[in-house]
Amino acid sequence: MLAATPEPPYYACIFTSQQQEAPHHVQAYKEMAALMITLASQQEGFLGYESTRNLEGFGITVSYWNSLTAMQSWKAHTEHQIAQRLGREQWYQYYKTRICKVESDYEDPPLRASK
Amino acid sequence: MLAATPEPPYYACIFTSQQQEAPHHVQAYKEMAALMITLASQQEGFLGYESTRNLEGFGITVSYWNSLTAMQSWKAHTEHQIAQRLGREQWYQYYKTRICKVESDYEDPPLRASK
Repeated sequence: MLAATPEPPYYACIFTSQQQEAPHHVQAYKEMAALMITLASQQEGFLGYESTRNLEGFGITVSYWNSLTAMQSWKAHTEHQIAQRLGREQWYQYYKTRICKVESDYEDPPLRASK
Repeated sequence: MLAATPEPPYYACIFTSQQQEAPHHVQAYKEMAALMITLASQQEGFLGYESTRNLEGFGITVSYWNSLTAMQSWKAHTEHQIAQRLGREQWYQYYKTRICKVESDYEDPPLRASK
């Protein structure tokens, strides 16, 4: 479930969100989330993602990209725009997105043979 | 539960971890996690954190800092060093830490009056 990202530098999008207490269209949300992962994975420059959400509906999803341009293309993707609008209107109580440059990383146990 | 971070740029430490399936010393882990938050909050340059973990034990914690120096000081903090060693030895099946510079952010609804 760890994203097998390359040696830094690369880019990360940290998306933190609180689901609505009684989210409308739970099944639609799950299907849209799965679709977004499938579509993001097909994007040029996508490196992987990590995602988790607790029982209270507080979630963090981090997607990794090889450039800011790749990340911006994904933000502008048509189906992703529809998902973003539904997120704002129906699914999330609040959310925040942070665009970051990953400058270094370390792990245990080591995942990259080069380390 | 969103960290009220200032206008970028600032720094983020993304810590992704998988807990052991049968974590030893569950109570000790909880107390240590609470202690780490208390101590980190007292550090110069600490801006806040966001943390969540699902039922399978996969978690993401992001802490925010006003400089790389502040983040490095916290990494070297004595009690934090002990927690890191226990994490490697007893609590986590695997983990990865990524050090990032946050270059931009946006949110809904807006949290900062300045936006």
